[in-house]
Amino acid sequence: MDGQCKLQTNIHDVETVCFDRNNGIVKIIDQTQLPNRTVILSIDNQKDLWDAIYKLKVRGAPAIGVAAAYGMSMEADKIDADSFDVFYKQFTQIKDYLDSSRPTAVNLSWALKRMETVCLENRNSSIADLKDYLYREAEEIKQEDSFVCRQIGEYGLSLLKPGDGILTHCNAGQLATSKYGTATAPMYLGHERGYQFKIYADETRPLLQGARLTAYELKSAGLDVTLLCDNMCAAVMRNGWINAVLTGCDRVARNGDTANKIGTSVVATVAKYYHVPFYICAPTSTIDMTLASGKDIPIEQRSKDEVTDMWYKEPMAPKGVNVFNPAFDVTDHELITGIITEYGIAYPSYEESFNNIFRKKEAESKNHVFL
Amino acid sequence: MDGQCKLQTNIHDVETVCFDRNNGIVKIIDQTQLPNRTVILSIDNQKDLWDAIYKLKVRGAPAIGVAAAYGMSMEADKIDADSFDVFYKQFTQIKDYLDSSRPTAVNLSWALKRMETVCLENRNSSIADLKDYLYREAEEIKQEDSFVCRQIGEYGLSLLKPGDGILTHCNAGQLATSKYGTATAPMYLGHERGYQFKIYADETRPLLQGARLTAYELKSAGLDVTLLCDNMCAAVMRNGWINAVLTGCDRVARNGDTANKIGTSVVATVAKYYHVPFYICAPTSTIDMTLASGKDIPIEQRSKDEVTDMWYKEPMAPKGVNVFNPAFDVTDHELITGIITEYGIAYPSYEESFNNIFRKKEAESKNHVFL
Repeated sequence: MDGQCKLQTNIHDVETVCFDRNNGIVKIIDQTQLPNRTVILSIDNQKDLWDAIYKLKVRGAPAIGVAAAYGMSMEADKIDADSFDVFYKQFTQIKDYLDSSRPTAVNLSWALKRMETVCLENRNSSIADLKDYLYREAEEIKQEDSFVCRQIGEYGLSLLKPGDGILTHCNAGQLATSKYGTATAPMYLGHERGYQFKIYADETRPLLQGARLTAYELKSAGLDVTLLCDNMCAAVMRNGWINAVLTGCDRVARNGDTANKIGTSVVATVAKYYHVPFYICAPTSTIDMTLASGKDIPIEQRSKDEVTDMWYKEPMAPKGVNVFNPAFDVTDHELITGIITEYGIAYPSYEESFNNIFRKKEAESKNHVFL
Repeated sequence: MDGQCKLQTNIHDVETVCFDRNNGIVKIIDQTQLPNRTVILSIDNQKDLWDAIYKLKVRGAPAIGVAAAYGMSMEADKIDADSFDVFYKQFTQIKDYLDSSRPTAVNLSWALKRMETVCLENRNSSIADLKDYLYREAEEIKQEDSFVCRQIGEYGLSLLKPGDGILTHCNAGQLATSKYGTATAPMYLGHERGYQFKIYADETRPLLQGARLTAYELKSAGLDVTLLCDNMCAAVMRNGWINAVLTGCDRVARNGDTANKIGTSVVATVAKYYHVPFYICAPTSTIDMTLASGKDIPIEQRSKDEVTDMWYKEPMAPKGVNVFNPAFDVTDHELITGIITEYGIAYPSYEESFNNIFRKKEAESKNHVFL
């Protein structure tokens, strides 16, 4: 907590987001520029942070949570108030603004709510102390994320065996989180332990997070990764190359229905047909027990030019064509073999299993110090 | 059969391939340039034709068959021989060369075999007459294709109702065939009759035939078409927007297993999960009764740069990454609701149903004059 920011440009040991409090700057790797350029953005105001989240310069549910918490701390430090009420009014304006940047990943609002709780619980502290507490909470959210990824890695690895073929969709890797990622954590840990996995990465249209980010970070770390178009999952499963599918998630309802990057439920459906186990890697922060099912998860619709024009030398579709571009889909709980959290693996029926996991979390977190 | 070539640049009434025999030129629309430019290629030698097929400048199983037959006629016209044996030796060299351009679509070898049969059945004719017969056969293959598409349109339309949402993958449209296409034929006929379909076109990575060709030709013809990424089929089916899936095919084995553009079996698997009927539109020329199942269909593997570099402003994946890029996948017969041919709709069990269709074809073709 010395305000130093250790963001690396070496992708092997990358910190996707960090906060230089002394200078009031949130630093992120601009993920839209990868794999061709490693560009570090220095963000010093909420508008630029909102824009960075909306444009997926910082992306991945856990990373968005961390970035929002840092952004909240950065903006809180600027508040000039001599009473809690004045401070809190400005705080909530900033919080609501940041919270509006993307609707589906629950980690964004989860992280901002944690910041708000710290605010409210310390209403009698001095404003200077309050700002310190907010900063500490933001750092803690990030540190917890590292712990979460490592634990998901261990639980996930227990489901795999050396030489397995593993398919993943989108990027739930280091770039989406802290070290190890979520869906990639079992891959990285297995790699460290000589498991020799064969990883298959869906390119993940339209924004190509699989090609640009997952294939990039896994290859950089020395893993055996093969890039696929999203429509090739049946071909590789029919060939018998895939022993398990691992993906991240943006929000899990209490019945286990899971919103994740568009196409995830396609892979899950195909996996079920080919009897390939399909696992979601979910920090408990992405499990939203307030939602009964996936029907209640808001799905972000994005601009048509992401499909028709972005990345391309010239437009790849007729001018003015209608485009449907949902950023996420919902995978029905019945397609999911298990949901891997930092406190164990949930199996159907999920609501009961999640309750056990949250009880374990509460018991263990009393004994656990993250920083 | 006057040797005139009526290839249109107006996409509404397009002829994808035609043959100007007087000048020894096969003309094709270069489909790799659509939708941004309508470029007509004039091809006067087998090497350029091979290249045009391999590079998908002309593509779609029926169009490849027509182009190969025209190419065969064009090259046969050039053969300088005074005996059948000398003629036939050169003929087979050309045929084998053209046949090697793409392995999966059976129409290529089917059309070339028809040309060879004409050659062998007329071994006692003069070389000049033989060349005329070959030309006539090539024109007949094309004319039959128009009849086939129209009939598939009628049979397909019998399965649909006004207002239906229809999903298609890749391009089995006019650009892949003659007028109407195969998978698009029911859409065009329905459009003419006021059915007001809502069409959803998968963009079809890596070569984007859905975005560049299907969305383009349907929109140009005034149909209501919405473009999707390939990984969105579950999202639209979950929304209840799709009443039927229609696709073309490149080769059907006698048990109904069907090779078609990569991703077709993904859509079929998802359609089964959502109880959406899935139909293959198959000219009888694509049904290969010599193959017991899809396991025997050769699958073309294509270059990795189609996935990582082609179309893009800059590479979209890390340099040197492994890529798996099969051009086709095989859809298991159990995922297919019905196979629509020009002589009726085949239902499981397919072998028996195909036999009935081929019997009907034989009976009717005796009474049918295509030209």
